[in-house]
Amino acid sequence: MFLADTIVALATPPGVGAIGVIRLSGSDAIRLADEVFFGKKLVDQASHTIHFGSIRDEQGQILDEVLASLFVAPRSYTGENVVEISCHGSNFILQEIIRLFLRKGARLAKPGEFTMRAFLNGRMDLTQAEAVADLIASSSEASHHLAIGQLRGGISDEIKKLRQELIDFASLIELELDFGEEDVEFANRPQLQALVQKLLRLINALLDSFQLGNAIKEGVTAVIAGRPNAGKSTLLNALLNEERAIVSEIAGTTRDTIEESLNIKGVQFRIIDTAGIREASDTIEAIGVEKTLEKIRQSAVLVYVFDVIKTQPADLEADLKQLLHDDIQLIVVPNKMDLNPYTTYEHYANPYFSEPQWTPISAINQMNIEFLKEQLYQLVVDTDTSMDAAIVSNARHYEALAKARQSLESVLTGLGGAVTSDFVAMDIRHALAYLGEITGEITTEDLLGNIFSRFCIGK
Amino acid sequence: MFLADTIVALATPPGVGAIGVIRLSGSDAIRLADEVFFGKKLVDQASHTIHFGSIRDEQGQILDEVLASLFVAPRSYTGENVVEISCHGSNFILQEIIRLFLRKGARLAKPGEFTMRAFLNGRMDLTQAEAVADLIASSSEASHHLAIGQLRGGISDEIKKLRQELIDFASLIELELDFGEEDVEFANRPQLQALVQKLLRLINALLDSFQLGNAIKEGVTAVIAGRPNAGKSTLLNALLNEERAIVSEIAGTTRDTIEESLNIKGVQFRIIDTAGIREASDTIEAIGVEKTLEKIRQSAVLVYVFDVIKTQPADLEADLKQLLHDDIQLIVVPNKMDLNPYTTYEHYANPYFSEPQWTPISAINQMNIEFLKEQLYQLVVDTDTSMDAAIVSNARHYEALAKARQSLESVLTGLGGAVTSDFVAMDIRHALAYLGEITGEITTEDLLGNIFSRFCIGK
Repeated sequence: MFLADTIVALATPPGVGAIGVIRLSGSDAIRLADEVFFGKKLVDQASHTIHFGSIRDEQGQILDEVLASLFVAPRSYTGENVVEISCHGSNFILQEIIRLFLRKGARLAKPGEFTMRAFLNGRMDLTQAEAVADLIASSSEASHHLAIGQLRGGISDEIKKLRQELIDFASLIELELDFGEEDVEFANRPQLQALVQKLLRLINALLDSFQLGNAIKEGVTAVIAGRPNAGKSTLLNALLNEERAIVSEIAGTTRDTIEESLNIKGVQFRIIDTAGIREASDTIEAIGVEKTLEKIRQSAVLVYVFDVIKTQPADLEADLKQLLHDDIQLIVVPNKMDLNPYTTYEHYANPYFSEPQWTPISAINQMNIEFLKEQLYQLVVDTDTSMDAAIVSNARHYEALAKARQSLESVLTGLGGAVTSDFVAMDIRHALAYLGEITGEITTEDLLGNIFSRFCIGK
Repeated sequence: MFLADTIVALATPPGVGAIGVIRLSGSDAIRLADEVFFGKKLVDQASHTIHFGSIRDEQGQILDEVLASLFVAPRSYTGENVVEISCHGSNFILQEIIRLFLRKGARLAKPGEFTMRAFLNGRMDLTQAEAVADLIASSSEASHHLAIGQLRGGISDEIKKLRQELIDFASLIELELDFGEEDVEFANRPQLQALVQKLLRLINALLDSFQLGNAIKEGVTAVIAGRPNAGKSTLLNALLNEERAIVSEIAGTTRDTIEESLNIKGVQFRIIDTAGIREASDTIEAIGVEKTLEKIRQSAVLVYVFDVIKTQPADLEADLKQLLHDDIQLIVVPNKMDLNPYTTYEHYANPYFSEPQWTPISAINQMNIEFLKEQLYQLVVDTDTSMDAAIVSNARHYEALAKARQSLESVLTGLGGAVTSDFVAMDIRHALAYLGEITGEITTEDLLGNIFSRFCIGK
């Protein structure tokens, strides 16, 4: 890491638009901008002001008329001097201006480098920096809510507070160790025990929230499967019906992602269309069936639709025997209930599902579709976790929390008298390290590289 | 046009990026922003300042942490109050914030509406407004140079000045008409004649520049054609060689556009690959040949490549007879000159080309490739027009200038004594109207709608 140099990158999405913004950060950013910006001298201006002028190359040729926004260190995103150049949104112009800055001595920013500098300069902790990438990637209300919460402190505030208390105890225990053989106790054991239990309760709650957090962040994949003419497409349309209208307001949300995406109360579902499954019980094409089964294996929910007029209990049992696997949640959807309203759960009851999974509908009449959506939502949000509580959605945080839990459990055992103080001290140090990794109070270069490489350039 | 309302749009390209900018313009823009922006009260802040805060919806939910840039009328792009909200570049966030503004009473901007307001509020004339769209679309140095020149006044300054002189004369002549039968002459006829001649010289120069201007703006299509193994692909690679490296610095410049684009001294050439033409003389597939010929018909330049070892003069003549048409410019390229360095123009001389069109190369050794590029450039820039002179690149301007020329020529004839003063006055009025259309001093709603509809939304 060379924090001394000045980095430059396009901060807005590539492509043609009304404006494009080039971001420059580093101690030399303002001086560098002044070399090519003709208007007021930026170095003489106050922070958080905007100036009109032109960007000229070495030959004095005007590349564009621009607005330069000035952020003087430390009052900027990165904590360094930052200049943002807002120009006409032509790739040619943006490219030429970035090249000009490169010739003047700036360096092209690596992915996430602006945010990494913000972290290294203490402008945000690591979970907040990670929230920036999540925020940009968020595509549903719930994932957005999660990322904003994390950006504003979220879980890290609570972890930091408890970790600080643990540090205080740890130092007392380390002090005891310094006294070696003298058998003194500076740290109040019952208080330490209470603190560790409190930390474990928090960590357990956070670990429990991960399944929900992950589902919210990544979306929940659900397969709608059924025999031909079970009404699968009609159901898909019935589910997507209201969603479609929302899509087109901003161009660029790619069509294929949306068309099979379903947002239920802010949770994103990805509905997978496995055409093959419809033929699976009719054909012996083992490869086709295997492919479909693989898709189902990767999914969290199976919505099995069947036609209440044609389907026999034995058919249903055969299909489910083939399709179900251990990690999938099942919703059984008898369709065309308008044609046979007296269909009962008992008639079809079989070993593969129970009554709560029974959700009769008539897709063509939109009958019970809202209830089916509610069922899908409940499958994901059936934990005790409130949507407003702290939720872990980051696999890295989950792993660190799990390791911290292990260490803290060893601390509890140790405090029970099984081991000597130096082992307890070591377990506390481990727990502190794992918790510190979450907020970034303890980092390695590998860890940082890993986190920031998944950012886009310019952030 | 409802200049009274406040318009909102995404100003940056759609898609995921570090930041996205939402632009709000209208007399209510600042008040509207204050309703959803939580930080300092924007209405109390100075123009050209930037403020950190959060955007919250009606329920107080934070949609994003943003920077708000403030431009107080008339010191803004549109001349109205403008607020630019710089948020995290997630489509979800941008969409939610735009929706929030719509609920608060803003209206979604139509394409080009911000620039149209800038024109209507007198912030720029019509040619400058048009230059904004050209600037955004510019993809080569020359087209960019042209657009920047136009944005900074360009041809309109000169036209405006001469038009003003003409208006002064016109008013004197109109005054003569008021005196009706009294046969007075307020307007000095020789002076008027001199002015009209001066205007005609300018207009003729501008009209002459259109072919170049159009080529620069739209790019020049050139077909490289030749028989199989003539070395066509090698030539294409030799021409594109240095270009390829330039591509990847900014993502989003689509690959397929670049791969066949060639920039010679800032003029963009679009090289068309007509695979079919190579077989044209060997097969009798009339449809395939017809398709290729159609591509050639749409092109400005034909680069005919042949193998100096294998190709006989008769083959060459047959190919050119088939390929050439009236509006295409030809460059004949004998290839593999390294294998037969004594090949002469005289040996191949035929009725379809002359010596200046003869450009021998060895594509594989990069021999004479730079000269071939120079030849291609000369084909486009062979007019007397200097690249720094005023150049017309807009078809609308071209048409208006042509009509103005016609009217001014009638004025000259009229001044010769052929018609009465009222006819001269009418011709001057027509000329004034056509010239006024260029700069926007005279407009109709249709004309404006037509011009601004080709903009992107947000500009």
